[in-house]
Amino acid sequence: MRSSSDSSRGARQADRTQADDPQRHGGGGPPILYIVGIGPGNVDHMSPRAREVLTRADTIAGYRTYIELIRPLITGQEIISTGMTREIERAEAALAAALAGKTCAIVSSGDAGIYAMAGLVLELCRVKGIAIQKPGAPEEAGEGLGIEVVPGIPALAAGAALLGAPLTHDFAAVSLSDLLTPWDTIARRLAAAAEADYVIVIYNPRSRRRQDNLDRACDIIRRHRPPQTPVGVVTGAMRANQRVLITTLAELPEANVDMQTTLFVGNSTTMVYRDFMITPRGYSDKYALAGHRLRAGAGKGR
Amino acid sequence: MRSSSDSSRGARQADRTQADDPQRHGGGGPPILYIVGIGPGNVDHMSPRAREVLTRADTIAGYRTYIELIRPLITGQEIISTGMTREIERAEAALAAALAGKTCAIVSSGDAGIYAMAGLVLELCRVKGIAIQKPGAPEEAGEGLGIEVVPGIPALAAGAALLGAPLTHDFAAVSLSDLLTPWDTIARRLAAAAEADYVIVIYNPRSRRRQDNLDRACDIIRRHRPPQTPVGVVTGAMRANQRVLITTLAELPEANVDMQTTLFVGNSTTMVYRDFMITPRGYSDKYALAGHRLRAGAGKGR
Repeated sequence: MRSSSDSSRGARQADRTQADDPQRHGGGGPPILYIVGIGPGNVDHMSPRAREVLTRADTIAGYRTYIELIRPLITGQEIISTGMTREIERAEAALAAALAGKTCAIVSSGDAGIYAMAGLVLELCRVKGIAIQKPGAPEEAGEGLGIEVVPGIPALAAGAALLGAPLTHDFAAVSLSDLLTPWDTIARRLAAAAEADYVIVIYNPRSRRRQDNLDRACDIIRRHRPPQTPVGVVTGAMRANQRVLITTLAELPEANVDMQTTLFVGNSTTMVYRDFMITPRGYSDKYALAGHRLRAGAGKGR
Repeated sequence: MRSSSDSSRGARQADRTQADDPQRHGGGGPPILYIVGIGPGNVDHMSPRAREVLTRADTIAGYRTYIELIRPLITGQEIISTGMTREIERAEAALAAALAGKTCAIVSSGDAGIYAMAGLVLELCRVKGIAIQKPGAPEEAGEGLGIEVVPGIPALAAGAALLGAPLTHDFAAVSLSDLLTPWDTIARRLAAAAEADYVIVIYNPRSRRRQDNLDRACDIIRRHRPPQTPVGVVTGAMRANQRVLITTLAELPEANVDMQTTLFVGNSTTMVYRDFMITPRGYSDKYALAGHRLRAGAGKGR
């Protein structure tokens, strides 16, 4: 099952320079590249592990906006910061720094793996044949570059918390960005999710170059879901520019939506109670919630 | 759009007793019920906001196992702890405590909203007609019970980080628990996700009472996806009992899977490189990753 493509170039390069700055990476052990999810943006929602890794890093690579979000943690680390569309450059620069023996962290907002940098960095390692291993891998695994993915609170969890509880039942996450994914694939996934009554979380609903995709997505979803379906619109969750709105599928095309927006399209049971969007797990159907206390036990959901 | 069902009973009850313990909730403002995601289990992955809320709470309600995970944070808080199948009791007790003026936190592992307590608590508020409002709601919203959902790192993000990067493209989350959801609905969602080539994250794959559902799920997915499709199996992510395995769809039924396991079924492009499971975003198709540096810009994924 395990692939065993083998280039130990990375490991050797790293060994050569590893002891350069013992204060930061403490010497010993192979070099490590951390792929870090900083959470939605506010340091109140960044994990202690992410904070520790960023504080100890020699080098931090990231999209300019994300570097600004973690500015309070930057003391003397070297910063590799580029614009939004330069993610391949950032990933290559971070890999080069780590292979040169630096303790390097590359950051994404939200989680590190959900439509984020972990995939690109690992794709690059594979294409370039760089020997990599997980932290704490047994010694017989050799001396590859260590890769630790540090998870963060994803935009879908941060946005859901601000709306109430839209994700208490099955959901599908779809990005409307068609730069790397053919629109036909996106359309097929939206249709399948709508038809099977998933709550649908939409990432990258609109950008300057993609004004129409949201309208097209709404058309697809409306074939399977009524116009009054609740839709949560969260922009800049836990950031200074945070905006939260609950609207309907019919009115969604008029909502203020940009690249920092995540959308939550309810399923057939999603409702709004006061300011809260709620997708019930199904307790009301099975138990008289207002009445006696009953045993349930629906698995995780505790 | 906003529902306006109106019972101010909750608010009045709370006002009466609010000043009971000024040290903890600091007096002033309406009472608040916090619905808190503690993250996967290790305090290294709990947000500072969750930690702060739990530390300051008068009362903490939670499933016994989760109370053990946050034991280091418990100093003098009253604990409402019940077994796994008693989630309705816990939610009702937490609501009662908050309505009586206590600052109360009800905890879920992972995120607070993904198959978790936020949905049940808000469902209960709706059914009982309890006046609720978001923290920081404008004064004209009245004096309902404040509800703050504190997000956490969900099991799907923690598990993905341990596997590598399985969630870099569109994914669907499905729970196999059929206690509150008819199996036909679950089966339809699995089929739709498999057919539309989503990565599939499976929660609650097996319990003592549900031995067969995973086999049935595998049968459905195998109709649309080849037997060698990579599957990540993560149990007890970031806990003492953590186990991580990468296997195949064909071999999944033999894997050691329990209630603390989350499964990650790859899509048609998911691959394994050394110990890492990777779902590419699509850079390799569009750009020669091994060659020159090129502009991309696929939206969130930076």
